[in-house]
Amino acid sequence: MSSVILGMGNGKALFGNAVVSDNDLIRFVEPTEAAINAFDLSVLRGDGIFEATMVWGGFPISLENHLKRLAHSAKLMDMPAPNIAAFTRAVNLVIEAYPDHESGQTMRIIVSRGLDSSTGIGMDAPATPTVFIFLDGKAPLHNLTPLSMMSVTRGYPSDIASRAPWLLNGAKTLSYAMNCAIHRECARRGIGDAVMITEDDYTLECPNATIIAQYDDLFVTPDPRIGILHGTSQRELFAWALQEGKRVAYEKLPVEELREADRLYMAHGGWVIPVKELDGEQYEVDAAQAQDINDAIHSGRTHDDALSIAPTGDYEF
Amino acid sequence: MSSVILGMGNGKALFGNAVVSDNDLIRFVEPTEAAINAFDLSVLRGDGIFEATMVWGGFPISLENHLKRLAHSAKLMDMPAPNIAAFTRAVNLVIEAYPDHESGQTMRIIVSRGLDSSTGIGMDAPATPTVFIFLDGKAPLHNLTPLSMMSVTRGYPSDIASRAPWLLNGAKTLSYAMNCAIHRECARRGIGDAVMITEDDYTLECPNATIIAQYDDLFVTPDPRIGILHGTSQRELFAWALQEGKRVAYEKLPVEELREADRLYMAHGGWVIPVKELDGEQYEVDAAQAQDINDAIHSGRTHDDALSIAPTGDYEF
Repeated sequence: MSSVILGMGNGKALFGNAVVSDNDLIRFVEPTEAAINAFDLSVLRGDGIFEATMVWGGFPISLENHLKRLAHSAKLMDMPAPNIAAFTRAVNLVIEAYPDHESGQTMRIIVSRGLDSSTGIGMDAPATPTVFIFLDGKAPLHNLTPLSMMSVTRGYPSDIASRAPWLLNGAKTLSYAMNCAIHRECARRGIGDAVMITEDDYTLECPNATIIAQYDDLFVTPDPRIGILHGTSQRELFAWALQEGKRVAYEKLPVEELREADRLYMAHGGWVIPVKELDGEQYEVDAAQAQDINDAIHSGRTHDDALSIAPTGDYEF
Repeated sequence: MSSVILGMGNGKALFGNAVVSDNDLIRFVEPTEAAINAFDLSVLRGDGIFEATMVWGGFPISLENHLKRLAHSAKLMDMPAPNIAAFTRAVNLVIEAYPDHESGQTMRIIVSRGLDSSTGIGMDAPATPTVFIFLDGKAPLHNLTPLSMMSVTRGYPSDIASRAPWLLNGAKTLSYAMNCAIHRECARRGIGDAVMITEDDYTLECPNATIIAQYDDLFVTPDPRIGILHGTSQRELFAWALQEGKRVAYEKLPVEELREADRLYMAHGGWVIPVKELDGEQYEVDAAQAQDINDAIHSGRTHDDALSIAPTGDYEF
């Protein structure tokens, strides 16, 4: 049975050390009804962070890496540190409440800084993050249909993350208006998705996904230290590649080099999707390989290995 | 009596031509209770637009210019055009519902694209914008205490708005996480506010305000066509200046020139606030002039003239 489950989290327990009962940790509410205060900073300022993944057969893909990244975003946003054990328990309570996991559901974890303390409603409220988690079996899941893509400038030079932390590059914030605008631009041009690049022509990320280039048996993705998210599904892909005896690398990746790939993949939400075209240039699609990678991710085969995958060594801006 | 009034707008009437009764146009709700759906695009994506001003003695400062700018933001965001007459009526209904206007209140108009159509809750819903308007007499108003400021890079070159409309420069979106981050950076450094600059050292705007430089009897502000908001309070200041026989100009303003000003002002929310320091450099504060400008704005003296103030001629990126 497909449905949508919405659980409102206990911000104090999820960002503190108090241990509370299940019912005090997550309170299930009717998802069609209003659950958020108009003075919440998610509503007024996009001032919060989030994670999105997929639950496959009751198993949340890359959950540990998502929660690790949530903690990283919280740090970049000067928010308190999430209690990972409490978040894990909350996520599992939401999953347990779902009626039937057969068909796969999208999951989102949303955290805002709380009520806006510059308003009369928020000024005397305790600074407790607002948290909710939903499991959505009604929204369409991704699939393996090969994508056309275009590159668009992000407007920044490649060293900006080292100089301007207030731009929040690398934090997964709720301020997604620009990401949405890029997707509208894609739709206008009849293109499936976009990859953002720097003003000095280095590869960044997609509006809600990671880009990966394959050269023979080497898989390359932009080093997140350039100021982008560290892809969770990309780490699952890298785990698959290493299990298959292939090589992987994080690089400061010029767009010119991206274009020279044998194959391109876009990864997000527990899916790795083949790219058939970038800026009008055609790329080979290996449907069998794409299926293999996704099967490995969805079956949990890559889960453990993906936890330890990360760029190593120094990074030069 | 200070309070907070929250009115939920009728998105269909405010973004269409249907004429509805007062009660159908704005529905007053308890501001401490949940009024927004968790799947609203304001919550999930910061995907919406807003305006903020002040109501002084029952009079909404610069309302026409705010609604004009809301329409401009809607266009940049590919949203439908707001019905300005309906919005004006809705704003006035909210003001009429407020118990006592003596002490001044902040007003915000919030619009999101509606429910997220990529979720099971939003997918079958009509694409109707979510609108709410609040009047907040409990939050502190601005005042004329001179500000210290610092410059921070926005990370963009000065011609980016001409090349990358998907970055939404010049739209007042709900995606304000970066603006909030700059204010946290200011607080960390013990600085009052910031002015953003381009990578090639042109002056932009403040996180939620406009910067104005005074040279003798000339008032200069950055031309909004660089990709910033057209300041409403700045237009009121320009109207005051013209009434006083002074000169005004919109310019592509190098930071070097900004630094050479005799005086600096930051303008927002119906207030023009003197700046006493920028990047450690001290500036003369003319408290009497600051008071004059604000009195002219708050008494409505500048209102009509401000409506027609705008940059003229071509703009070179």
